[in-house]
Amino acid sequence: MTGPDTRHLTRHEGQVDRDQRRALFGHGAATVWFTGLSGSGKSTLAFAMEHALVGRGVACYVLDGDNVRHGLNRDLGFSPQDRTENIRRIGEVCRLFTDAGLVVLTAFISPYLDDRARVRSLLPRGAFYEAYVATPLEVCEDRDVKGLYARARAGELPEFSGISAPYEPPVDPEVVLDTRSLSTEAAVRRLLERLEEDGVIPRAESDHGSPG
Amino acid sequence: MTGPDTRHLTRHEGQVDRDQRRALFGHGAATVWFTGLSGSGKSTLAFAMEHALVGRGVACYVLDGDNVRHGLNRDLGFSPQDRTENIRRIGEVCRLFTDAGLVVLTAFISPYLDDRARVRSLLPRGAFYEAYVATPLEVCEDRDVKGLYARARAGELPEFSGISAPYEPPVDPEVVLDTRSLSTEAAVRRLLERLEEDGVIPRAESDHGSPG
Repeated sequence: MTGPDTRHLTRHEGQVDRDQRRALFGHGAATVWFTGLSGSGKSTLAFAMEHALVGRGVACYVLDGDNVRHGLNRDLGFSPQDRTENIRRIGEVCRLFTDAGLVVLTAFISPYLDDRARVRSLLPRGAFYEAYVATPLEVCEDRDVKGLYARARAGELPEFSGISAPYEPPVDPEVVLDTRSLSTEAAVRRLLERLEEDGVIPRAESDHGSPG
Repeated sequence: MTGPDTRHLTRHEGQVDRDQRRALFGHGAATVWFTGLSGSGKSTLAFAMEHALVGRGVACYVLDGDNVRHGLNRDLGFSPQDRTENIRRIGEVCRLFTDAGLVVLTAFISPYLDDRARVRSLLPRGAFYEAYVATPLEVCEDRDVKGLYARARAGELPEFSGISAPYEPPVDPEVVLDTRSLSTEAAVRRLLERLEEDGVIPRAESDHGSPG
């Protein structure tokens, strides 16, 4: 069978809606999409955000290579087509988590502008935060925490973003974070403030009357 | 590149663990997997459960044809291979939602024993509830709410489970629900009680001292 087949598709009355989910969780839902080169600090930031959000009672979850590349997308490699399909599926999972009322954080290089634009289009307006982790290539390569840049330069890792495959930086991201000038704590604070300003999460009680 | 490529995979210290998620949500996590023929009542039960769970403050979400077939799995059809891949991906999404601390409910025919066994194997022991909606074929076909059985009998819908494609009933499901003898309310009550007994969700306050 080709083309759309709607045999199993019916809208159900009385489904839990977005307002009910907001009331249940005590906050809104969003996707915070970290993008940047390998070693730029995406995962560190995503998990630091998760830690901070849980500390404030916010239901959240991190999608990263560890829980996606070994599971949902274990059938995909690193070719341009597979990278696109990788990001498409992750975007759809973000849509489900956001629809469920959570703040979902993703840590994937996601090198293509078009792929990220497609994820944005899946989500309700205002629910997608593109967070560009703008650590420059030289710095990432200099850190080379996992030794991947050395292997990429040696030709052992083909299609490595920034070396042997493109990385297309965001044009108009919601947030830009340069981990040279910004500590993890400061980056998390900036992101939390943005989510507070937009009403996704409530303001922290300790913010009131704080001199900072 | 073929074979496993672990270039982006690193465990992160201090990730939010299962106990912290239980504390955050005030309940445990599980996948309740409804399986049964088209028209057996899977979606009705899943959404009734969602409604009941949200009413009790339980974070939950329904995966069904509507939000999965049109999204994550829009590239898949109804061939045996595509059905298997459909269920594999849904199982992986259940794993993510359960890992995130939610009770996730699914409403898919999921006709193959092997496919369902594979989903079970993805989840922590005790976190997978196979709920067999055992409404017999004759009853489903007699209801034919969406007119699909008539179309399947007319040969318009090939590979239709129970008619022109197999449906393999569960061998040892956690719960069996026959919608002929059991109202939706009674089925929901039975499922909630099972989740309470297993400590996935707290007992409802109204249960204490109730004459029923």
